[in-house]
Amino acid sequence: MSAPDRLWINVTLFDGLNTAAEPMVVAVKNGLIERVCPMSELSASEREAGEVFDAECRLLTPGLVDCHTHLVFGGSRAGEFEARLEGQSYEAIARAGGGILSTVRATRVASEDELFASALPRLEALMSEGVTTVEIKSGYGLTVEDELKMLRVARRLGCERPVRVVTTLLGAHALPPEYKDDADGYIELVCHRMIPAAAAEGLADAVDVFCEGIGFSVAQCQRVYAAAKAHGLAIKGHTEQLSNLGGSAAAAHAGALSVDHIEYLDEAGVKALAEAGTVATLLPGAFYMLRETKVPPIELLRRYGVPMALATDANPGTSPIFSLRLMLNMACTLFRLTPLEALSGVTAHGARALGLHQQTGRIAPGLRADLCLWNTSNPAELAYSVGLPTLARRVFAGNSH
Amino acid sequence: MSAPDRLWINVTLFDGLNTAAEPMVVAVKNGLIERVCPMSELSASEREAGEVFDAECRLLTPGLVDCHTHLVFGGSRAGEFEARLEGQSYEAIARAGGGILSTVRATRVASEDELFASALPRLEALMSEGVTTVEIKSGYGLTVEDELKMLRVARRLGCERPVRVVTTLLGAHALPPEYKDDADGYIELVCHRMIPAAAAEGLADAVDVFCEGIGFSVAQCQRVYAAAKAHGLAIKGHTEQLSNLGGSAAAAHAGALSVDHIEYLDEAGVKALAEAGTVATLLPGAFYMLRETKVPPIELLRRYGVPMALATDANPGTSPIFSLRLMLNMACTLFRLTPLEALSGVTAHGARALGLHQQTGRIAPGLRADLCLWNTSNPAELAYSVGLPTLARRVFAGNSH
Ligand SMILES: [Zn+2]
Ligand SMILES: [Zn+2]
Repeated sequence: MSAPDRLWINVTLFDGLNTAAEPMVVAVKNGLIERVCPMSELSASEREAGEVFDAECRLLTPGLVDCHTHLVFGGSRAGEFEARLEGQSYEAIARAGGGILSTVRATRVASEDELFASALPRLEALMSEGVTTVEIKSGYGLTVEDELKMLRVARRLGCERPVRVVTTLLGAHALPPEYKDDADGYIELVCHRMIPAAAAEGLADAVDVFCEGIGFSVAQCQRVYAAAKAHGLAIKGHTEQLSNLGGSAAAAHAGALSVDHIEYLDEAGVKALAEAGTVATLLPGAFYMLRETKVPPIELLRRYGVPMALATDANPGTSPIFSLRLMLNMACTLFRLTPLEALSGVTAHGARALGLHQQTGRIAPGLRADLCLWNTSNPAELAYSVGLPTLARRVFAGNSH
Repeated sequence: MSAPDRLWINVTLFDGLNTAAEPMVVAVKNGLIERVCPMSELSASEREAGEVFDAECRLLTPGLVDCHTHLVFGGSRAGEFEARLEGQSYEAIARAGGGILSTVRATRVASEDELFASALPRLEALMSEGVTTVEIKSGYGLTVEDELKMLRVARRLGCERPVRVVTTLLGAHALPPEYKDDADGYIELVCHRMIPAAAAEGLADAVDVFCEGIGFSVAQCQRVYAAAKAHGLAIKGHTEQLSNLGGSAAAAHAGALSVDHIEYLDEAGVKALAEAGTVATLLPGAFYMLRETKVPPIELLRRYGVPMALATDANPGTSPIFSLRLMLNMACTLFRLTPLEALSGVTAHGARALGLHQQTGRIAPGLRADLCLWNTSNPAELAYSVGLPTLARRVFAGNSH
């Protein structure tokens, strides 16, 4: 067995699920994690081999996974945010052309280059905090061409920066004005035009829906899931955010990787997730921005052993938050997760929510060497504090950037 | 009149109180703002003079002011944060030596160098987001020597980094174990030993108190104010955070620069602030971390024209948040400030809360050239979004860093 490319020694290890009890060694070779063992098992000759980096007991975690974002969009909703705080009603803002459809309009008129340029600083903000894998959804185009345009921009972001981008077609995000009174007609378009086109061009890794009274019905979402599966795409859902429609259980029965938001999920829904192995993705940023009071059923999710992922939901309307680190604190403060649960949510379980748990999100032999070295030795610090500790080093597929 | 050192042209200007309606020019000379005028008033010859920087319509604001922090402390409370989320009661944590007194113990045993080294990344986190003036309180020493030690560390931080540090003696922060049943005796120590010593060594710019059922009574705080004023020091107070004791009005009557927290402030208290010209400092970080529900009386403060400052309250117990930018969003989201009110809170009104409004916090002739250039042209973006827009340039006393 030849020498590793790099040996990380004296590491305080959080492997995505657990914290090691003693100082550890992580060997990296050809972009993969080759070996993880206690310092005491390292022989003198091994210590000589390859490039040795002494972490001096600092914390090494998997590279962070942001498994739910809407990073690609046109325009800005800052003006609408300001108008609401200046006392304008939702109705007045909607009449003035605000809300999600203003983002749809701005996204449709934007070129691919413009969307790429505006999304890049958002991606870089996430990367600067240690994100090495990010999911990006479409959903502001709502025509075949504009949804594909968004997905192409997402793919391009992953090509031009050292980060893994997973793309999700969210055609069933909102009803476009052209289909104002014809939701079923629009779902037809999603199933028979958008999904096939995205699949044919290899632009989407998964398909998502907004299952809600103000979104699409469970039956409509099921049609989308069936179409996605017929084209070999993974599925997921925005479910039980504002009410309990049973959308999470329907998604789980269809084999969804994750259901996301789930503030209103009940015990039957939690059970369905547990049985299907579906991840529950928590999005405290939207909860915070919308000043919601109904928290997700954390105790039930724990009792049934449902893995909890955690993500920014970065989007221009309900969560203009480009900080996954802040989500760690919000998950603890607002949802009462423990710091380690929160950390698993942005590593091991975040990767599972994307179907990537055999590739990233944990520090284990055979996985990609996506790593973060932090200027602390206590994993709880990452959730306790905002703005600190700083990231000492971000490693993507074995390479520091 | 000789040429300015630097001419900022095509600036979108937020001057600390208002947004200019047209592209502006800001001339800087010898570290001071020399002139502020519309682009249309700039002559061709002026445009030739000095070094010209074209802001290309990006936003220029005053350097940010964080007017309430506890940046200097020993130890970490991350373990306590984790224990609470793992289900341990406050009592069990207190029995295990947690709470503020654990910070006092760790601060007392720390050397000046150790306190400096641990505070530096906290200061740098704030500076990286555009802070050019920061107030730092003592309050975890609770002996004459340990309080002076903290203040010396705060002064040193200001010497070793390009930032203005204002120091505040907060001896009356908590009752030290040595005075367990003798709060009056401890207040004697604060008034007759700590304040004179801090004043004699020039270590404190102001004196602060924690006026609360679990802190000190209004009468005790008044004795501290009297001693501070006798030694020529400004005063301020942590008041009406958890209950309404009338501490804000007492502070205002004594001539306080600011009263801070004030969730429980009533109309009589607001009136007292307005009459005295005392600033109301809002601290949404602690409100958020403690999951409080009682918001400060924003409407009353507006009605009586009380200036509202906004700060991090960065501290190891109730607000381990080293991000003034996040406070902009939290002030809007949680307290319903408008984006421009929030921005004034971290600029013009933040400076006023420190008695520095003739020196910094606004972009006006004669003030120090403490400036932030942002990668946006809309001031509302700074409060709307978290993590973006990025800071393009931070200028302290005319110099970019
Ligand atoms: Zn979403
Ligand atoms: Zn404080």
